[in-house]
Amino acid sequence: MITEQGCLARREALWQRIPAEFDTALITARPHLMYLAGFEASATVFNSQESAASLILTREGDAVLVADNAQEPFSRAAFVTERVEPLWYRCVEAAPHRGQLLGQTTAEWLRSRSKSGLAIEFSHTPWLMLAGMTSGPSPLRLHDLDADLRALRKSKHPDEQAQIRECLRVAGEAVAAARRDVRPGMTGLDLYRLVLRVASEVAGRPVHVYGDFVSGPGAEAGGGPASNRSVQSGDLVLLDYSVVINGYRGDFCTTFVCGGTPTSRQREMHAACMAALESARTLLQPGRTGRDVYAACRAPLESAGLGNHFPHHAGHGIGLGHPEPPYLVPESDERLEVGDVVTLEPGLYIPGVGGMRFEHNYIVTQEGPEQISHHSLSLDN
Amino acid sequence: MITEQGCLARREALWQRIPAEFDTALITARPHLMYLAGFEASATVFNSQESAASLILTREGDAVLVADNAQEPFSRAAFVTERVEPLWYRCVEAAPHRGQLLGQTTAEWLRSRSKSGLAIEFSHTPWLMLAGMTSGPSPLRLHDLDADLRALRKSKHPDEQAQIRECLRVAGEAVAAARRDVRPGMTGLDLYRLVLRVASEVAGRPVHVYGDFVSGPGAEAGGGPASNRSVQSGDLVLLDYSVVINGYRGDFCTTFVCGGTPTSRQREMHAACMAALESARTLLQPGRTGRDVYAACRAPLESAGLGNHFPHHAGHGIGLGHPEPPYLVPESDERLEVGDVVTLEPGLYIPGVGGMRFEHNYIVTQEGPEQISHHSLSLDN
Repeated sequence: MITEQGCLARREALWQRIPAEFDTALITARPHLMYLAGFEASATVFNSQESAASLILTREGDAVLVADNAQEPFSRAAFVTERVEPLWYRCVEAAPHRGQLLGQTTAEWLRSRSKSGLAIEFSHTPWLMLAGMTSGPSPLRLHDLDADLRALRKSKHPDEQAQIRECLRVAGEAVAAARRDVRPGMTGLDLYRLVLRVASEVAGRPVHVYGDFVSGPGAEAGGGPASNRSVQSGDLVLLDYSVVINGYRGDFCTTFVCGGTPTSRQREMHAACMAALESARTLLQPGRTGRDVYAACRAPLESAGLGNHFPHHAGHGIGLGHPEPPYLVPESDERLEVGDVVTLEPGLYIPGVGGMRFEHNYIVTQEGPEQISHHSLSLDN
Repeated sequence: MITEQGCLARREALWQRIPAEFDTALITARPHLMYLAGFEASATVFNSQESAASLILTREGDAVLVADNAQEPFSRAAFVTERVEPLWYRCVEAAPHRGQLLGQTTAEWLRSRSKSGLAIEFSHTPWLMLAGMTSGPSPLRLHDLDADLRALRKSKHPDEQAQIRECLRVAGEAVAAARRDVRPGMTGLDLYRLVLRVASEVAGRPVHVYGDFVSGPGAEAGGGPASNRSVQSGDLVLLDYSVVINGYRGDFCTTFVCGGTPTSRQREMHAACMAALESARTLLQPGRTGRDVYAACRAPLESAGLGNHFPHHAGHGIGLGHPEPPYLVPESDERLEVGDVVTLEPGLYIPGVGGMRFEHNYIVTQEGPEQISHHSLSLDN
């Protein structure tokens, strides 16, 4: 779903942030190979195990993908101007060290391309790719891309928004199936598998799913990984998960009663959460701060006398990472901008009464928030 | 299943390879954090997204794990002498760049620890972790651990062998379920989901599964990812997959007919593959080369006049990577040693007749090969 047009626009935006004296950029972190070139080696095939790749960009518009021969199906699909495919393995000779091969091949190309200065991801670029280039009589100057990429990733391009919508569509069908099929006696792992099965069916390909799959005491504790704990009749079931496709994900939570009806106290909690969600939603406007949104989310919970049971963020940005900017927390001055994709997720956890969290995802537009997740937030099932 | 004793033994073996003038080692690649400290942040929880960690080892025996506060459940389980947990996110302030925080924290610790010289993974260690340490009047000298770790990983320690056996037990129950439940009309994705479901049930936790899930023309082509192609009655179904637990995996293939009986030509192919497997198995002895094993695997296929239909390796090493040394290919002089865990996987692919591959895994011992996978290799289902 990530498009060539999107990749070109993001490369252009990246060059606008890099000081003019730097002529070459090196990208190595996996999410950024998708972000800038639509490249990802699927994690569910043999040839991707311990694989990596690198992307060399020039200010003139070259985009050179370095990925060994075993990643060919994925590099062919990437949006680049040139491909370098060092021979790693062809079932004839013993394969060399895969990371060494990538690092050495990349370093050779960099030496032939970079004349003035090189932009790299300081927190990720492997030492080997810069071997011999940063010392000696005329060392190459380096620019750190970490902050640039983090800033660029915040506001999503149209192809990224479309990809996140697709992740949410898949996740939504899976939670509808979970609501339909959940029964007392099912474990958290059963629910995880059910979601994973439906999500891969709907997506038509293997997908990665992570998150909280809990019930009863697990919901009171606010979440946790899938386990062998069985759902009891009358339990609150809390499902908060993401489906990852092409590196992107939505984020997605609902809570409901399995095999029973909510207590009146649970209904009060639910009503307060719905009010918090709506209050925060109206603040999803360009220019508003994370602090503003958090306060708007918290206010209805305080009014209901439940503020002390809301221990976490009001939400955060989503996309290639999770959580990522903007952070909707009490002390954040980050400002919302058009294109930000955020989740809101008020929750309340009261010992002896129950734990619940409700979440929708939104795109910040000039006209206000557009809700892009559509699952049920009903406490009744 | 990875034990403290195993980690200590592997750290000791690593120090024996590092020249005496280097007093500190830095480990950053994810498989090596498991290998040397039993650390891995689960991919199925929220806090692991875009996470990383580093391990600082000293020749005196210190093992310092640097992993941010959001990875606490996993760092608590690691076998280290000290933990450094920089504060990344606590739902109050906007979180900083996660990789930058790790890199800067690690660099600070390295500066306080490394006096004489630092061993790093040249192909992996991020530039930021060495910032300011390798230039200037008294630059720190560096030793490359890539080759050391590759060599060490080849022969597996007892805890690693136990982990791989567990992966194979889980994979074996999943393939038994696939044989039992496969029906004409099921797609490759159905089979992938079936395997994933049973594997996570048997393992009692989410697991990662990758490999080939194909039938009919896909089997003739030698494999491929799970797709929406439906199994036809009489098709050969080829399942070749790995289940990954704690970073380790077995490797595992079988082929069978769905909804019919094999043709006589298919039975000939099967018999030749069985002979190839047995012939190669007897060569799994310490001191034998990859070339020897490949030749032994190929000979029975040649004798049956089918050598031209065997296009790939006879097998390879498995463990934290896939494939990894030793490579059982025509031009490899790598030698088998006690503790190597290898797979043998003869296969034949004949247009218009069918494609099949059969695989078992073995530990090389002083007394010969021990077969550690136990799934059925019958062509009849």
